[in-house]
Amino acid sequence: MGAEEGRRQALEAHERWRGKIGIIGRAPVATMEEMAVAYTPGVAEPCKVIAGEPDAAYRYTRKWNTVAVVSDGTAVLGLGDIGPLAGLPVMEGKALLFKAFADVDAIPIMLDTKDVDEIVRTVRLIAPGFGGINLEDIAAPRCFEVERRLQAEVDIPVFHDDQHGTAVVVAAALTNALKITGRRAAEVRAVVSGTGAAGTACAEMLLEMGVGDIVLVNRAGIVAGASNHVQRAIVARTNPRGIAGSLAQALAGADFFLGVSGPNLLTADMVRTMRRDAIVFALANPAPEIMPADALAGGARVVGTGRSDFPNQINNVLAFPGIFRGALDCRAREISRGMKLAAARALASLAPEEGLSETGLLPTALDPRVAPAVARAVMEAARHEGLARA
Amino acid sequence: MGAEEGRRQALEAHERWRGKIGIIGRAPVATMEEMAVAYTPGVAEPCKVIAGEPDAAYRYTRKWNTVAVVSDGTAVLGLGDIGPLAGLPVMEGKALLFKAFADVDAIPIMLDTKDVDEIVRTVRLIAPGFGGINLEDIAAPRCFEVERRLQAEVDIPVFHDDQHGTAVVVAAALTNALKITGRRAAEVRAVVSGTGAAGTACAEMLLEMGVGDIVLVNRAGIVAGASNHVQRAIVARTNPRGIAGSLAQALAGADFFLGVSGPNLLTADMVRTMRRDAIVFALANPAPEIMPADALAGGARVVGTGRSDFPNQINNVLAFPGIFRGALDCRAREISRGMKLAAARALASLAPEEGLSETGLLPTALDPRVAPAVARAVMEAARHEGLARA
Repeated sequence: MGAEEGRRQALEAHERWRGKIGIIGRAPVATMEEMAVAYTPGVAEPCKVIAGEPDAAYRYTRKWNTVAVVSDGTAVLGLGDIGPLAGLPVMEGKALLFKAFADVDAIPIMLDTKDVDEIVRTVRLIAPGFGGINLEDIAAPRCFEVERRLQAEVDIPVFHDDQHGTAVVVAAALTNALKITGRRAAEVRAVVSGTGAAGTACAEMLLEMGVGDIVLVNRAGIVAGASNHVQRAIVARTNPRGIAGSLAQALAGADFFLGVSGPNLLTADMVRTMRRDAIVFALANPAPEIMPADALAGGARVVGTGRSDFPNQINNVLAFPGIFRGALDCRAREISRGMKLAAARALASLAPEEGLSETGLLPTALDPRVAPAVARAVMEAARHEGLARA
Repeated sequence: MGAEEGRRQALEAHERWRGKIGIIGRAPVATMEEMAVAYTPGVAEPCKVIAGEPDAAYRYTRKWNTVAVVSDGTAVLGLGDIGPLAGLPVMEGKALLFKAFADVDAIPIMLDTKDVDEIVRTVRLIAPGFGGINLEDIAAPRCFEVERRLQAEVDIPVFHDDQHGTAVVVAAALTNALKITGRRAAEVRAVVSGTGAAGTACAEMLLEMGVGDIVLVNRAGIVAGASNHVQRAIVARTNPRGIAGSLAQALAGADFFLGVSGPNLLTADMVRTMRRDAIVFALANPAPEIMPADALAGGARVVGTGRSDFPNQINNVLAFPGIFRGALDCRAREISRGMKLAAARALASLAPEEGLSETGLLPTALDPRVAPAVARAVMEAARHEGLARA
């Protein structure tokens, strides 16, 4: 199927669906007797109990299973700042995946503001009806402050998927790539191209994994200063050799390239300067930093992309459904670093059915084992850290 | 079934359901090919179209069918200010009825604020994902200002059901009660007990219907002054004879008593002072202003309540599903007085299947003819007034 044909098909399908999610009734109201239980006067009973015991909302309503997928539409896919209305098809898609992979009831909340204060206040004010908040496609660096401040103000978990979902799946894929190439994390030299939401979160996760030498690169070359406090916290813990220069200079002698940046930044020649058995994850979508064939031609041994039409798709859908399933099921207060690491380890431990290999780093997005295993690991970590309330 | 048994049953049912509504997927994601259409990369196509043509959101997303059921939990049923969390079972029930009776996808939005500015701003900021706003159980007089200001700031219809849903059903029931008792609206003397959200909206609707003499009564007796601008606008057009005194004094010689106030305010003796063939709608819930047997003993000819266990249940569920169905289907900018009157007329024209009678003023809440007929009438009125955009 050609690209043009694919585009036409996607538009036609969306017009046919007129919405990829909908509401379904879960209680009968076919008779007056049933109405009297689900609505007045019966509904007053759970209301009264919850008024006296707020936690009872988790017993009597859908709060326990409901996640707001919140976006201001400023960093949608590769499309950038297209606004809240135009971002709605993506958030509906996200809600569809939440339902399909983890039976989470997710509801798109499109925010008509880019102001951090307004975003935080609005989401805080609508939080009572939700059991979790998935922030999505909010541009860096505002996304960092929104997530941090919001988590401090609400008692349900807040998770910016573009950061942490990506980081969890990258960590899992890297864990398995290290196994295949016989490396230990501490001896890995990593280059992270891209210092937006995904890049900074991935760098943070690599540090958690024990990767000893990380060099951050953006359009201006190797990052030395920082433009926000999240970058600053990362930059201070990276580049231990204090090198400067371009992406090409960063790559010389590196074991691992992670691209969460833009198309065609990496060449086969640059890969040739990396260490033997190099690992290349080129996740820019739809056009990766380097096409897999070129990376392999340059000597890379393990190559992953964000695309489903190449081996080793590194796809957030492997992470976020199970992470929220686990967080909801144990009523976690937040989704901590330990919970994310546990999710990455659980994902890495699920080899593809045909066995772990250079072209089979991770299970596919459709593997039904994934979400339950991730959920279990997240829940155990939350309990271990004392973050679970159920 | 006793009251205690009913309460126990309602709690058990809510605990079994753990949520009366949920999300359902409406697009397939069982294969990577399907994922590529509903999610990346296919989803970028509708996003791009909407970014250039905002109206396309009605073609490619669920906006066209999605209503936010917004409450701050300050005036929930007869329970009063129980807060947003404790109000959630009611809003889930409302969403359940929206789905069951009119296939509307309604989503509870519980607001953790009672501040008018914050309510208006919050709902405005989340409006892009919705096709309509149903305000619910927000205490008077804030509900008036919230509705007015919000409708001025968003381009989708805003409807406070406690006001207008009640008024539409009361108007329909009164229309038929006038037929049965052989009265014209202009010659009717009406007493409205209760000057909250429902009472003021009902008085407004009675004026629209042409009722010539309305006396408003609250706890302090016949209303002379006003405590807010909505009351003020009503008070100025009521009490043409300029009478003063108590509810009993207001009732002497009245044709119609409407109670949207509290239990046991009206006695059989007071009904005896009304005109022959009096009409009594005692809508306080669960304990009405007067029990039907007492109203009949006092000489009333037509008696209605809000309860399903007496004849003539005057229930908002006869109105709001069809009203939103119609408003959504024609993409109405607002829900105007004319549209509400049209809804009331359509509802009045649907006699119960066994024929119009003293004990059969309106179809039952379960009558499948209701929502489509109301929707059609609302849509026609919107078109007639130039308020429809589709």
